[in-house]
Order: sequence, then C-alpha cells, then structure tokens
Amino acid sequence: MKARYDLRTMLKPKSVAIIGASRNPDKVGHIILQNYLSAGYSGKLYPINPNADEILGLRAYKSVLDIKRDSIDLAVVAIPAELTPQALNDCGKAGIRNVVVVSGGFAEVGNGALQDKLKDICDKYGIAMIGPNCLGLMDTRSRIDTLFLPSYKISRPFIGRVSFVSQSGAVGSTILDIISSEGIGLSKFISYGNAVCVDEVDILEYLMADDETDVIVMYIEGIKRGKEFVEVARKLGKKKPVVILKAGRTDAGVTAAHSHTAALAGNYATQEAIFRQFGFTVAKDLDELLDYAKIFASDPEPKGNRVSIITNGGGTGVLTTDAVASSRSLVLSQLANETRAALAKTMPALVNVTNPLDLAGDADAKRYGDALTAVSADENTDILIVIALFQTPGADSKVAAELVHQKGDMDKPMVVISVGSDYTGLHKKILESGGVPVYESPSAAAKALEALFEYGRFRDRKP
Amino acid sequence: MKARYDLRTMLKPKSVAIIGASRNPDKVGHIILQNYLSAGYSGKLYPINPNADEILGLRAYKSVLDIKRDSIDLAVVAIPAELTPQALNDCGKAGIRNVVVVSGGFAEVGNGALQDKLKDICDKYGIAMIGPNCLGLMDTRSRIDTLFLPSYKISRPFIGRVSFVSQSGAVGSTILDIISSEGIGLSKFISYGNAVCVDEVDILEYLMADDETDVIVMYIEGIKRGKEFVEVARKLGKKKPVVILKAGRTDAGVTAAHSHTAALAGNYATQEAIFRQFGFTVAKDLDELLDYAKIFASDPEPKGNRVSIITNGGGTGVLTTDAVASSRSLVLSQLANETRAALAKTMPALVNVTNPLDLAGDADAKRYGDALTAVSADENTDILIVIALFQTPGADSKVAAELVHQKGDMDKPMVVISVGSDYTGLHKKILESGGVPVYESPSAAAKALEALFEYGRFRDRKP
Repeated sequence: MKARYDLRTMLKPKSVAIIGASRNPDKVGHIILQNYLSAGYSGKLYPINPNADEILGLRAYKSVLDIKRDSIDLAVVAIPAELTPQALNDCGKAGIRNVVVVSGGFAEVGNGALQDKLKDICDKYGIAMIGPNCLGLMDTRSRIDTLFLPSYKISRPFIGRVSFVSQSGAVGSTILDIISSEGIGLSKFISYGNAVCVDEVDILEYLMADDETDVIVMYIEGIKRGKEFVEVARKLGKKKPVVILKAGRTDAGVTAAHSHTAALAGNYATQEAIFRQFGFTVAKDLDELLDYAKIFASDPEPKGNRVSIITNGGGTGVLTTDAVASSRSLVLSQLANETRAALAKTMPALVNVTNPLDLAGDADAKRYGDALTAVSADENTDILIVIALFQTPGADSKVAAELVHQKGDMDKPMVVISVGSDYTGLHKKILESGGVPVYESPSAAAKALEALFEYGRFRDRKP
Repeated sequence: MKARYDLRTMLKPKSVAIIGASRNPDKVGHIILQNYLSAGYSGKLYPINPNADEILGLRAYKSVLDIKRDSIDLAVVAIPAELTPQALNDCGKAGIRNVVVVSGGFAEVGNGALQDKLKDICDKYGIAMIGPNCLGLMDTRSRIDTLFLPSYKISRPFIGRVSFVSQSGAVGSTILDIISSEGIGLSKFISYGNAVCVDEVDILEYLMADDETDVIVMYIEGIKRGKEFVEVARKLGKKKPVVILKAGRTDAGVTAAHSHTAALAGNYATQEAIFRQFGFTVAKDLDELLDYAKIFASDPEPKGNRVSIITNGGGTGVLTTDAVASSRSLVLSQLANETRAALAKTMPALVNVTNPLDLAGDADAKRYGDALTAVSADENTDILIVIALFQTPGADSKVAAELVHQKGDMDKPMVVISVGSDYTGLHKKILESGGVPVYESPSAAAKALEALFEYGRFRDRKP
C-alpha cells in the first residue's frame, strides 16, 4: 500500500504561515502564533491577516500569495469556517501542500457541503489537509504547536517517545494535559478532527515509520477506511505498542459520535476483536488509556509474568495481591531461597520474608533499598510492584530518591503505587520525573503491567 | 442482639490519658499528644510517661494510677508491645473502660500469646479495647485524634457526615488523606487493627445508631463473627448507605491478609453476595471506594435512572454516553419538548439540542448556566452529568462558580467530570469545596451514579 500523504514535512516544516494570526490575544490565531513563539520554533513564521502589517513583532502578510521570497511548508488556518475555502485556494495557488484547518463549523454541525468544498480544493492541488474541526499538531522536537489553548490552562509536555493521535480536540487536550503532568514524554500530538483528507490510516502509517515514536496512543471515534486500517494495523502491532480508546462502544455512543465528528462508528465488538488480534492494548476509558500509555512509555517488557510486591502498608499489599492474583496473566512470584536468605540478613525481625514483602510502616530509604536490591536480583521475579505510602512515619523524599536510583539500574519493569493528596503528590512528581511510573490504585497498576506483559508475548509470538 | 460495647464514650471522651506520651518529636506518643493539641481537643489530657514531669506544656504522670482527681474516659496506648499488658492492667485498676492500643507486634507478627494476654485483661476489667496494631480513632466534632501520622504528611478532614472504618492502618491513612483533599466531610474514623475486643460488628452497631453519621465507608480484611455481622448488616443496609471494600478476594489475597492483621478472610464470593443482599455498595479497589464515598456524601438519591449529559467537549460527551449506556441501570434521557424549546432559545446556533448536549469549546459561564437551568428542570431528567474541561477557551473560574451555584439549588444528583492537571486541579478544588463531586473519568462518574440509584431503589423496596 502506497502512502497517500507524506506527513514528514507537515511535522517538520521549515516555514509556517498562520492564516488568521491576530493581534487580539483572545483570538485563536493569536494564541497559535504566540504558542509557536513560546515553544521556540526555529523556522520562519508568516502571520497572515488582511488588516495588519505586524503581529507580535513579525511582519504580517495579507495573503499567502504575497509571500514571494519563500516557499511555505505548512499553513495553519484559524479563521471562520465560511472563509476557509478561499484561504485553502490561496494555499493551493501558492504551492503550499500541507495545511491544518483548526476551524470548526463543518459536517459536525450539519455543514457537509462546505466540508466537501475543502476536499475538492485539496484534491485539485494535492494538498494534505489535517482537520477541519481539530487542534492540529504538536512536535516536541521541531517545536511546532498549532494548539489554540493558552499554556496556563494546559501543561505542555517534555520531549519523549510517545506519539498521541486524537480525533477529538477536547479529549486530545485533556489527555495531553495529563500526559504532560505525569512524566510521559511526548514525540508528536496529532488531532485530526473530521478527517476529510488525512485520516487515522495515514497518521498510523507515518508514525509506524517515525524513528522518534516508540509508542502510539490513540483516541478515535470512527474508522473510515476499514480495509486499509486493518492492513496498517497488522504491520503496526508487531512493530510498536499501540494503546487505543475507541468511543462509540454503545448504540447511544455511536449516535453521539456521529453528531460530534460526523464519524461512522461501526460495530464496536468487531473493531475490538480486530484491535486485539493485532496486539493493540484496548482501553475502555480515559483513565485506562493513560495508565497504559504510562507503562509503555517507561518500562521494558518483562521476561515473564511473576510479580513481587514490596510494601510499607499491609492492607495495600493485600489489595495489590488481590489485583495481581485476579489478573488474566500475572502471578505472584515465589522468592528464591537466596533472595529470602539475603532479605533475612537485612530486614528487621518484624518483617516476614514472603511475597508480598511488608516492610512495615517505619520502613525508610535504607530498608526499601535493601529490599529492592534483593528482590530485583531474584531469579523468580520478572516484575516489581513497590507500594510507597508517604503518609507513614518512615516514608520521605529519601525513599522516593532511593526508588528512582534503584529503577535506574533495573532491567525489569517496576511500578510504584502511592495513594494520597498533597505530600504524596509531591513525591509522585519526584518519582515520575525520575522515570518511575506511579499508579493510584492496585488494580490500575496490575492492569497496566498485564498489558505490558501481554504485548511482549504477542510480539514474540511466531507469525 | 445486645451491644457488647458502648462506643459512645470512646468517641466523645471528656478526658484522655496518653500512655507513652513523649518529649521526643519522633515518637508516636509525642505525635498523638501533639495531634490532640493541634486538633483543638477541649477535654482534659493526661500524658503518661515514667521519665517526664511535663510534656508539651502539660503535667505528665508516671502511671494512670497516679491520676487521683479525675476519672479517665479513654486511654491511648503507644508503647512497645511487650509493655502493653502492664499498661492495660493499670488502666483496669484505674477504672478506665475505653482503651485504644495503637502499638503493633502481636498476632500479625506471630505473637498471638501476647495478644491473648491483652484480651484476658480486657475481659477481667470489662475494658472495650480497640486494636492493637491500628491507627485508632478520629472524631471531627469531639476533636479526638489518635493518628500517629504527622499532619504535613496527611491532610486532616473537615467536619462532615461520612464515617470511615478501616481494619488496616495504612489503607485507612491513605483513604483519609484523599477524603480530606476531595471535599468529603468526615464524622468518625475508626481503624481497629487486630480486632481483639472491639470488632467490625461492634463498630457498625455504633455507627448505625450514630446521629452524626449518614454514610458508612469501610475497608475490612476479615469477618470474625459471621452470624452477628449478617444480623447487623441486615438492619444497617436499610438505614444508611454502606460502601465496602473487602480485601482477600483471591486465595493469594487471603493468605496475605492473614499475615497482615491475622484475619480469617473467608470465602469472598459468599461475602460479596451477603453485602449486596443487604444493599451495601461493593468496591473492588481503593479508587472505587472513594468514587462511591464521594457520591453518597454529596448527592441526594435520584428519583429515576434517566441521565442528561452537558459537555464542552464532544469526545468526552461520547465517552460519557458510552459509560451511561453500558451501565447496569442508567439510561440516557430524552429531553422533554419544553426543555428543547427553552434550550433552542438560549443556545447559539451551533449547539445541537440533544442529549448529550454539546455546548462547544467556547462555552462560558452564561451558556453553562442557561443549559443547567433548562436541563435541571427537565421532567425527563433524573440525574445530571456535567463535563467541564477547563483546557477549553471558554472555561474558567466563572464556569466553576456557576456550577456550584446551580448545584446549590438542585434537588437532583449532579456530578462534574473534569480531566487535567494543574489548572483543572484548581477548579476541581473550587467545585468540591462548593459541594460538587468531581470525577476524573466518565466510567467512574457513571459507576458512582449507578450505585446511588441502586441504593435508593434498594431502600425503597418493600421488605
């Protein structure tokens, strides 16, 4: 299958025209231009506005046709829907082949005719268009940022290797906000809205080949080209982990999706079966999407399914044991004799050397360190779950630092469970900044590790 | 069934002896005394320590037997396990009939003999003992606070009508920490550990009759007196909503629970069936426990199961539609004609008047207010779910204030879904301080509302 669109220039443009750039800070076109400047985009920026000569210190142009001295790699269109065909026509004439239309007011509000007009213009000039009715693009390396959301409302992510594809702008922005605050590094963000030209198949093909993307996370409402989707998914699943949340699981959801992005949501059960067949990790809601994204972003695939639990809270250890024991594929490990002997030497008498290993409420950094050193070397342990309850007398920032340190040396997956408010939140930040994924419930941690294990098993399976 | 222990004086003592009170700020006995002082406890405090004359400005006594001029309503014991029998004996001789032993080192570490000794002393003197191996008690009205956790590590709750019972200290402290930060007001917190005297049955009997308790939330590992538990549960379920998380759902969990609080966890499937028969809401993990506690603490029971969704993010509206439509008992409402007419007048043209009602990304406080006024009065709507994504251009603190305002006037349950990091977190606090429960995923919100609806239906059922 030959790619319909080459999205590489779209994400790595040397020059960008912003059609609808404005001096009014409330306007979308202002926010987008400001975000490019704030993000430190190093290419050339061309604000387009018929009524301004200069915006945010940059020379403004009346139309893209007025930029004579340069070719434009990407145009971002942020103007009222009824003006977009003219702007797109101008792009075509000016030789611009990559356009993002963030404006809404098309098929999603019953205005399919206007949307068809955009499609015709794109076809005429061979334009790759993303949108309309979307948030557009972000690339943390090339520093492009078409998101028309002020940065005080939404955290911006740091550079990483997870790419996130969202049909919905709202879902996209909320997930991006959380990804950024939970220590998940981003490569690309692509919100594609009504998918008039570039659709999920084009985007997946691009990300499959993208060297800067190790994990793909996606939210979709409909699949337009089923056959092509299956073709890409088959190859993609073996190549990179994909976490997918598909809205429209119910009839009511399908109807709602149609009025949102005019998507044909199709039969969910069939779609889910296809996703699973190709090794995709299927999330049922936003929180699961995030839990899965986090583990694939941070941890190596485990060599087996045997889990050891280390805790400073007995009850949470019991709940985590339940979560592991009731999972589809994980089991509790039996610590090897050498491990038990090593622990017996370093642990105080009140610690019962077993799995879960309850270090007791006065466990400090030294005790966590000794336990982790022994258990991470245990030949019967493939995965570590460490519970660190920062409400307890012994737990402090030194415990967090010790966990970060131990994680750095480890070739096995290790996640932390911490539950609490402010003091815990601070230590969650320390841990996640240090590359340690933190979960807020035992079942969330177990489900994420299960997905990591199952993807590894899927990928290793002979065809 | 006659109550074995009267816990009223335990929670409302006029005088408290703290055995093991210490001048060393790292000692448990110091933290407990300090917490009583910080909480503003207005009764008399007697620090007991053989080696000090004065602690934190209070006269200290060598033994409870030295306090001649006063009768002591409650003794809190925070000394090494091996010293507890002597202290308990002194309590008995001094006429103290309520004791909390927070010390660990008993059956949970294989020291059953020492625990039996405590039991014998309690029986001899008729002492109601909570513990050992527990965090003890908190009552936000009488301001008693035996938690030996520094307040900078764990948020303290405000006065409310939810009482929380936890066998595990660690689970207790983490949930208490979150309850406090998520706007759930607390009445009593009782952590009862090894349950040598006072057990879950005694506590439930007490809370069933307690006028300050409207909702009971509990975490347990084992049920010691099955017959009596069933007897209390049968009456309790009809009287107050109970949210229960029972650890030991799996064989591995049962084993882990035994080594934690020496609890006999029993057969989970049987227990869950009993819980449900008596109308208890069963949580499978910590996050569910909290999601359920929140809705029962804040919202009236709905008159029916018809849900209307108002959103400023289309995709999140679709996911919420899926969550409602796939729930056991909730359905999407069909807005009445008058409601549709009212909305058609106030909403801009791009808003499609249907359920879910997508107000679009530029929705501001005015639009939310108009929508809520119409939908809360809708005769076909029993429950409202409002999605407020604060990443969008229109959403700000005025939207949060409008939601708080509307919620104040409403006799129907209304929850908010907000997903995001810092800016969203700020508005979550505003909403929850104003009595609006906030959920971070559509499925969490739907599950909580489903539990609220089902409990109402259970309670209204004829016997």
